[in-house]
Amino acid sequence: MADDHAVRAFGHTLMNVEPQSLENLISEFASLPGIGLKTARRLAYHMLSRRKSDVERFADSLMQAAEKVHPCPRCHAFTDEEICPTCRAREGAKSICVVEKNSDILPFERSSVHKGLYFVLGGVISPLDGIGPEALHLPQLVERIKQENIEELVLALGSSPEADSTALMIDRMLDGVNVKRTRLARGIPMGSDLEFIDEVTMLRAFEGRVSL
Amino acid sequence: MADDHAVRAFGHTLMNVEPQSLENLISEFASLPGIGLKTARRLAYHMLSRRKSDVERFADSLMQAAEKVHPCPRCHAFTDEEICPTCRAREGAKSICVVEKNSDILPFERSSVHKGLYFVLGGVISPLDGIGPEALHLPQLVERIKQENIEELVLALGSSPEADSTALMIDRMLDGVNVKRTRLARGIPMGSDLEFIDEVTMLRAFEGRVSL
Repeated sequence: MADDHAVRAFGHTLMNVEPQSLENLISEFASLPGIGLKTARRLAYHMLSRRKSDVERFADSLMQAAEKVHPCPRCHAFTDEEICPTCRAREGAKSICVVEKNSDILPFERSSVHKGLYFVLGGVISPLDGIGPEALHLPQLVERIKQENIEELVLALGSSPEADSTALMIDRMLDGVNVKRTRLARGIPMGSDLEFIDEVTMLRAFEGRVSL
Repeated sequence: MADDHAVRAFGHTLMNVEPQSLENLISEFASLPGIGLKTARRLAYHMLSRRKSDVERFADSLMQAAEKVHPCPRCHAFTDEEICPTCRAREGAKSICVVEKNSDILPFERSSVHKGLYFVLGGVISPLDGIGPEALHLPQLVERIKQENIEELVLALGSSPEADSTALMIDRMLDGVNVKRTRLARGIPMGSDLEFIDEVTMLRAFEGRVSL
């Protein structure tokens, strides 16, 4: 039901209900991966319903992280110290695990399976996305392997064609370097129903079968 | 395969892979509604992979929003001005639409269906959640209706039992005040298949049927 008074007085002007600073906050949230406009709006409205001190703490933690956290000069993992704790505590270790991105280190440390060093490559070679070898820390990796006399390189990249060709390139760059090269086993994950295993995983699990 | 060198040198010490400032940022993201720990970690790592100026802009937009945005003293909607644009531009309108929360105003303005004022109640009465009438802006609503000689009150609360009892309380508080009280029609939403309509919606649509 239209309000005649209002229609007469102001026509059909659509009010801009959201203040500019709220709009800005919404678009910042919407710029995060996996956050759509609706969720961004919900998060922004939620922030505004909080105590001002809570919002300040959030903003401060963003600033602190941006200021303090930087890539470790040795392994490129995020750290807020000069050299990351892992590189420092495990100096002299002879095994190095190469991952694509920072967060890939977590599952290794959670399962305590790797006691050696890490190296964050910063991605995999993907010509379609404009990521060439020069965008990754490949020379630094080779340099580290040589300088620290690394004995085993565990490649823990993803299982995409891009990851495979990156692995191939690392292998080539290490021609003549005496380092054992391994990669993670591929197969059936814990707890999965064989019925629902995809063809590629099944193929790899079958190829990689071991004697009882 | 365990790295014997590392095991000998450092035992089974689990490294703290994430710097403290990154952990803080993760827990801030995890405090947002609908954001679990995994998503929070992904968002925090994403922030750190951005340019520092981008992170600063995000932090700044949080601060700006927290500092500038406040509830409009008349309708309690978020605004960064003294009086919100809607209250100011539509002063003298004789219809007021009451919603639970700020973001409920958007669908009205998007569809240009309501040309009058708004009033954000700040929630609905919910004794189980400890939200009594005193937590809402009920007296201010009644006061505004009386002072501004509002002719129609459109109740646009949700359809929960709590919303219903809040509507009942508003109705009672307006005893003796000459204001028409309406609520939104309840029925079949646009584009939905009757087969999948829930019982309560069907009941309400049937009860509210109108002649052709």
